[in-house]
Amino acid sequence: MTTTSFEATLKRMPALDQLRAAPDGHRVLSGDRPTGPLHLAHLFASIRNRVALQDSGIETFVVIADYQVITDRETTGRIGDFVRSAVLDYLAAGIDPERSVIFTHSAVPALNQLLLPFLSLVSEAELHRNPTVKAELAASGRALSGLLLTYPVHQAADILFCEADLVPVGKDNLPHVELTRTIARRFNERYGDTFRVPEPLLTQTPDIPGLDGRKMSKSFGNAINLSMTADETAALIRRTPTDSERVISFDPDNRPGVSGLLSTAALVLGEPPEVIAEKVDGAAQLKELVTSAVNDHLAGHRARRAEFSRDSDLVDTVLRDGNRRANDVAQHTLDRVRTAMGMTY
Amino acid sequence: MTTTSFEATLKRMPALDQLRAAPDGHRVLSGDRPTGPLHLAHLFASIRNRVALQDSGIETFVVIADYQVITDRETTGRIGDFVRSAVLDYLAAGIDPERSVIFTHSAVPALNQLLLPFLSLVSEAELHRNPTVKAELAASGRALSGLLLTYPVHQAADILFCEADLVPVGKDNLPHVELTRTIARRFNERYGDTFRVPEPLLTQTPDIPGLDGRKMSKSFGNAINLSMTADETAALIRRTPTDSERVISFDPDNRPGVSGLLSTAALVLGEPPEVIAEKVDGAAQLKELVTSAVNDHLAGHRARRAEFSRDSDLVDTVLRDGNRRANDVAQHTLDRVRTAMGMTY
Repeated sequence: MTTTSFEATLKRMPALDQLRAAPDGHRVLSGDRPTGPLHLAHLFASIRNRVALQDSGIETFVVIADYQVITDRETTGRIGDFVRSAVLDYLAAGIDPERSVIFTHSAVPALNQLLLPFLSLVSEAELHRNPTVKAELAASGRALSGLLLTYPVHQAADILFCEADLVPVGKDNLPHVELTRTIARRFNERYGDTFRVPEPLLTQTPDIPGLDGRKMSKSFGNAINLSMTADETAALIRRTPTDSERVISFDPDNRPGVSGLLSTAALVLGEPPEVIAEKVDGAAQLKELVTSAVNDHLAGHRARRAEFSRDSDLVDTVLRDGNRRANDVAQHTLDRVRTAMGMTY
Repeated sequence: MTTTSFEATLKRMPALDQLRAAPDGHRVLSGDRPTGPLHLAHLFASIRNRVALQDSGIETFVVIADYQVITDRETTGRIGDFVRSAVLDYLAAGIDPERSVIFTHSAVPALNQLLLPFLSLVSEAELHRNPTVKAELAASGRALSGLLLTYPVHQAADILFCEADLVPVGKDNLPHVELTRTIARRFNERYGDTFRVPEPLLTQTPDIPGLDGRKMSKSFGNAINLSMTADETAALIRRTPTDSERVISFDPDNRPGVSGLLSTAALVLGEPPEVIAEKVDGAAQLKELVTSAVNDHLAGHRARRAEFSRDSDLVDTVLRDGNRRANDVAQHTLDRVRTAMGMTY
């Protein structure tokens, strides 16, 4: 894989403001793994960015990456619940299923088929070099599965099947976009011009820690799920371990609990954590402030979510329609790929 | 991978004669890579075996593995010509497209999608251990591609999508069937009983060398293609290098050219090569004998092939119909797999 330097990648990226001013002709692909309920970090780090892009008139594809649930775990678990829950959060956050295409991997065979020609374009050594695969392997504590090794190629299929030219990513996921660019270029060299080569769209989100200061993750029990009630949120915040120092200060290294709570309040209030620290006296007051700030911030989302969930057919309809549209696009792309490869018989 | 010993595998295998006596409920999957024209070794080692199984009333699926062309080479080359040529040879050899399903990988997305869940069931270490992958890697002289590493999992999808319980293989390919058995068992353990676990059907064909005594392969120019004319066959045999010893003897180690010619005659005449050696006097006479024996043997095949090739729509119709039937079966299997994995939304 020809890896471009990080600086070169940054220089190449279109500025978000420019994009919003001229959305025509652009298409964005992003998505989530349905390994659990979506939480506050998802909302701030990616979902709202998608909504902003969509509302600027940029075509948006959102993949619920259901096969990626089993890249680093044994079975699919409560996958159906998590997929449905994600759709409700998307709708509540403002993703409009008329303008954006929401789909699941498992429902789009023509997309998945692209994995085969794409796997022929990368070497095993290139797959091994992917830093995200290495990190996920270490975190999983399991043997490297064939699916974990190859999922970046499957991600390339996500991006290329819908001809996305822009892929919102954090710095950690830049190697995925680089691999996709490599695959697109190699395919075009071998079989003629077929794919446009996508660009990463680096999202400038701050690190969002969980309530206890560690990475926000459902496995740590430190994540405020978007689907929680106000009472569940309050109970979770109450249980967050803090220290007994009276004076509240922002010090992530030495006071992870207190600092995690401050970061959470800072995120939803849009104020620096240090400023919030000065306003409160003791952990109990801090927790009260975080609880009301989070619950106020999510009140609208949760009200819309509850409203949408009362329509028992809505989620199924959204997925059925999104999957149908994704299949149409994937079928069209697969036909072009087959023609380029001479597989028309 | 839990590898069963070779002896245990042999004991488990159903005898071909028993099968033919009671064909009901059995289904066989086999196939070819369309990397070039099919030749005499394909006819004797696999195609006629398929015809015999089909004619015993056993359901037969024949995959033209078009994506496997690029496991160990850069591009697809003249793939369309070779796919069409293979279909003509199948028909000429007696594969009946009404009773057998002839299809290409690239046309059956629901089959290809099975690669994703199946990749989650095997570790990278298991993929690396596959001796056929190792051998093909060495022969290709290229870097190990993602597709070469994972194609045994794709073969498992071939076998399991159509619920084949029997897979005709030579000894070299037993590890592929073992991997398929592992995948079927692991899927059933994790997601409930979904696949029947297939058995290998070891084909008892002799080694079939090319005209020059090396492995028959189009890259060595030593293969008698089924699509050659009688004159092309004669010219190819004339060009085979022999030695200047007057007395013809079967001695593969020291006289590869003479012995390759004797093996070819033995194959089509059904006599031991030593017996044929005694009948001829010198290389020129041997080549005449081989030429007439091969051309006589293939005359019927070639006449039928020529007849079928005059119908310009026939191959397209056979593939369209086979692909449609394979898609119906694959869609049904994929639905069952999605349901087992909880991916129904």
